[in-house]
Amino acid sequence: MSGWQTHATRTAYENAWIRVREDEVTRPDGSTGVYGVTEVRHPAVFIVPVTEEGEVLLIRLFRYPIGRDSLEVPAGGSDGQEPLVAARRELREETGRTAATWTHLGRVFSLNGVADARAEVFLAQGLADEGGGSQAEEGISEVLTVPWDDVLGMVRTGAIHDSETVSCLMLAGLALGRIG
Amino acid sequence: MSGWQTHATRTAYENAWIRVREDEVTRPDGSTGVYGVTEVRHPAVFIVPVTEEGEVLLIRLFRYPIGRDSLEVPAGGSDGQEPLVAARRELREETGRTAATWTHLGRVFSLNGVADARAEVFLAQGLADEGGGSQAEEGISEVLTVPWDDVLGMVRTGAIHDSETVSCLMLAGLALGRIG
Repeated sequence: MSGWQTHATRTAYENAWIRVREDEVTRPDGSTGVYGVTEVRHPAVFIVPVTEEGEVLLIRLFRYPIGRDSLEVPAGGSDGQEPLVAARRELREETGRTAATWTHLGRVFSLNGVADARAEVFLAQGLADEGGGSQAEEGISEVLTVPWDDVLGMVRTGAIHDSETVSCLMLAGLALGRIG
Repeated sequence: MSGWQTHATRTAYENAWIRVREDEVTRPDGSTGVYGVTEVRHPAVFIVPVTEEGEVLLIRLFRYPIGRDSLEVPAGGSDGQEPLVAARRELREETGRTAATWTHLGRVFSLNGVADARAEVFLAQGLADEGGGSQAEEGISEVLTVPWDDVLGMVRTGAIHDSETVSCLMLAGLALGRIG
């Protein structure tokens, strides 16, 4: 029993990637108001690619919404595909790599106070560099191969500031026995 | 040089907590289109409260946008306050605790492909239970005190699925020497 009641809902804004809906609600404390929720149209997939040597592949790209570069694990929208299919596609497009072994690490929700944005997180191992990809079209300026300890250092210093990347690294670290 | 150009911007939706703007853009590849960005009006603050014994305080609350309960570290909007002032307030409101020692762990950005949502992350130690708070008004059904190893287990199993909470735990683990 959530205590929330929804009386009406409308689409306040939409484009190809997001839909913003505004609900008229009664809150658990009995007060009434509106709740605006940003829905990401397709669940995202996040991939933590890890080499035999325990290095992590990261990409550098400019993020328009925050107006700055960001170092991140490969990710993208599932575009209606099965999450694993989308993950294979995104890894190839963003890094030129394929992976022999895929492990589903879990599902996380981002910004759950104002958004419905879920992501399926995968560990990709047994990497092979097939070349190619579409880094330029995706706005990716660099693909980095970073030792695990250096990745943690980049989180600590804020060089990695993408919250989803940090949470994916936690899930990967737990699965790989490098955390916990 | 980001390669993006913004030609026009308009407010597509707004309420007390978020503003959605739609920009007309030229992308780095020269194509034109729109970019919808959800802006969180006030930067968020996240607090990782850790006891002398290394336990973490978590709250359980129902998250309307995703329609389910979530286990999270205390957090909230800064509402125009200095981040540390807001963090003290949120910790007190959501858990009834004060903290003697505050450490700024860093800043993370959530959902940076579609949102401008930054959060300042703090470690709170030297906790004292002053009682009170406004858990019910905040929709908080439970305040849990969880040993660090159990917190990691909850991340691993998905019992904790809030992406920001997972990333804040990573930052806290690094600062406390429990990770890395």
